[in-house]
Amino acid sequence: MKKGSFLLQKIKNGLLGAAILVTPYLAEAQRRPSNISSPEVLPDNSVIFRIKAPNATKAQVVGTWSRGFKPNEMVKKDSVFEVKVGPIQSDMYEYDIIVDGLPMLDPLNKTVTRDGAWIQSRLMVPGGLGDIIDVKPVPHGDLKAVWYDSPTVGTEQRRMFIYTPPGYDKSNKKYPVMYLLHGGGGDEEGWVSRGRANYILDNLIAAKKTEPMIVVITNGDVNNIGAPLDRPANLPKKDNTGIGAMAAGVFEKSLVKDVIPYIESNYRVIADADHRAVTGFSMGGFHTQNITNANPTMFKYIGVMSMGLWSAARNDPNFDKTAYIAQLKALQKANPKVYWIGMGTDDFLYKSCVELRKVYDEIGFKYIYRENIGNHDWNSWRLYLSEFTPLLFK
Amino acid sequence: MKKGSFLLQKIKNGLLGAAILVTPYLAEAQRRPSNISSPEVLPDNSVIFRIKAPNATKAQVVGTWSRGFKPNEMVKKDSVFEVKVGPIQSDMYEYDIIVDGLPMLDPLNKTVTRDGAWIQSRLMVPGGLGDIIDVKPVPHGDLKAVWYDSPTVGTEQRRMFIYTPPGYDKSNKKYPVMYLLHGGGGDEEGWVSRGRANYILDNLIAAKKTEPMIVVITNGDVNNIGAPLDRPANLPKKDNTGIGAMAAGVFEKSLVKDVIPYIESNYRVIADADHRAVTGFSMGGFHTQNITNANPTMFKYIGVMSMGLWSAARNDPNFDKTAYIAQLKALQKANPKVYWIGMGTDDFLYKSCVELRKVYDEIGFKYIYRENIGNHDWNSWRLYLSEFTPLLFK
Repeated sequence: MKKGSFLLQKIKNGLLGAAILVTPYLAEAQRRPSNISSPEVLPDNSVIFRIKAPNATKAQVVGTWSRGFKPNEMVKKDSVFEVKVGPIQSDMYEYDIIVDGLPMLDPLNKTVTRDGAWIQSRLMVPGGLGDIIDVKPVPHGDLKAVWYDSPTVGTEQRRMFIYTPPGYDKSNKKYPVMYLLHGGGGDEEGWVSRGRANYILDNLIAAKKTEPMIVVITNGDVNNIGAPLDRPANLPKKDNTGIGAMAAGVFEKSLVKDVIPYIESNYRVIADADHRAVTGFSMGGFHTQNITNANPTMFKYIGVMSMGLWSAARNDPNFDKTAYIAQLKALQKANPKVYWIGMGTDDFLYKSCVELRKVYDEIGFKYIYRENIGNHDWNSWRLYLSEFTPLLFK
Repeated sequence: MKKGSFLLQKIKNGLLGAAILVTPYLAEAQRRPSNISSPEVLPDNSVIFRIKAPNATKAQVVGTWSRGFKPNEMVKKDSVFEVKVGPIQSDMYEYDIIVDGLPMLDPLNKTVTRDGAWIQSRLMVPGGLGDIIDVKPVPHGDLKAVWYDSPTVGTEQRRMFIYTPPGYDKSNKKYPVMYLLHGGGGDEEGWVSRGRANYILDNLIAAKKTEPMIVVITNGDVNNIGAPLDRPANLPKKDNTGIGAMAAGVFEKSLVKDVIPYIESNYRVIADADHRAVTGFSMGGFHTQNITNANPTMFKYIGVMSMGLWSAARNDPNFDKTAYIAQLKALQKANPKVYWIGMGTDDFLYKSCVELRKVYDEIGFKYIYRENIGNHDWNSWRLYLSEFTPLLFK
């Protein structure tokens, strides 16, 4: 039985798995040589990156561990480029390898995350914040991609993620809810793919730092029903018009009129302000401000990440500071239990946040201000989530 | 208010979304020039691919639309390479752009899918099968990533996806269940990312071709609790040992002992053989054979995709053809309503499937045989899913 022996040999060599997946036009060995790996995290949290690129003359690695996004030059030996970076502080990072000027994924790394048009390789460095972000042997909540009717936005169903905490399906308990919003250019996938919200919650709940809660991760881009793979292909491109629509106030209304009622009628939630939180970064911080300013008694827990006084900064002829302050005073009167602001020292919106705090301080509006050494990026937003959620529902 | 005007200008220009996401080390314009797009699907289903690569001397595009995986040479004009391919038959495809010998994603394409270590750009060509695979304005089922206890495999929770059909949450109806298995080297993400099982089901259910059903998408690699982003980072590499563990019979037992009881106690299902289906491709076809041979009365609907007589082909000294035939006869006696085999003409397992059918024919075991002009790839598996599910539960 010749063919049998051939297959047996392949199984014995552990090659059949590879063979089954091989796209014949490129030998597996050429694409992902089995004798090199990347990234390799060393015990001291230095990281070695490698790429096989026989024809290239120059390769660099650049990632979010470098505050200035300084590329590290890789050194070529035979056909493999290599560089050792760090030690790097424990966290999750996004990176590219740049080969002769062209950024690409690390072909040896199976973990790839996406936010908006940014699709990059993922690096996890253990021992600190990285461990809060990673998948750990703790009970895991479930994560459901749900389609809901959103008449406020349009006729088609829209997509969002719902995290239910460990044990949700096995109890009759009712839970508090946090609404978690993304930034401009993004979609509902960001807080899952890059934000790791479900694993951060799993780990903090297991450590009894964060109360078990439902987390609702929406899509704030009313131009799109879902993330790129979850909306019709070959639609006329609308991506560049996204920001206008995202800032036009429609999403905020839909959260209040469509999303919250959906959640409160389909999940076991405690449906009052004491058990509702909302937070988001960048555009999602702007959305958070708009939602809570317009609905002051709806949320007792509010988080504004990496966003300043944007509405005012737009210098809109329709912007009415008196009305804005009046809204803020109504919110102040409703007395939120936590109003939290997170801002990175290197954030391009840093100064607008100084302006925001000035307005708040003007009327004695209370907030917690957390400033980190960081940028307008996911390293800040994951950190903020890990610090904001322990303050909720206590 | 200078800063305000600056922001206003950015908003007006539609640039703030981009600015918010910019990783400063590479200008957005360099990475994804806004004046070119890729892939561009023309009305006749030709497709233009473009990449800006000023330093490169050679670029090609290669994808699963080409039976022989023949690369198409791109032509450089100024700093942009371009090629027009096709017309291409309506379907979904995976592709790379190869720049100076190095395969990379299409940087202008936000849709990227993964199976195992293969991470590639996605192309959707409309008008036929592509429309069955795409997101359409029909009611959508929900898709839940669930963690379940699997004592048969180990102590940690394992991850799987559960598709519930449109309307599941709003009815008290009980549904039939299909268990959907992946191939060697893959994981539970494959049938979602590349297989598009949820959208294929949405579209076929809306067209009343397929009965509404629950679909359970498992992880058949007992070495891993979940897909790469959904398992601990920085574990010692075990990928190359995967195939041995995947073929050792543990997963099959866990499906019967852990997965099915979980589904039948947590979801509204019709818990009998007439309302249970199982199917999978490649390694998942082998798993399907093992599960149904060992549990002949459990499933009335069985699909074997891109797999032949593998157990026999292993030429295992422990392989006992008499026992195998005895199992098959028990299955024959249980009288499955549909036993379906799909095989591509170009599949490297084609001949082993001829052997499988010989054994089945020897004892008069009834099956439906579907041969397509195709390879051992997702184009075949999506096609099979679209043809297999309409046969179920009728």
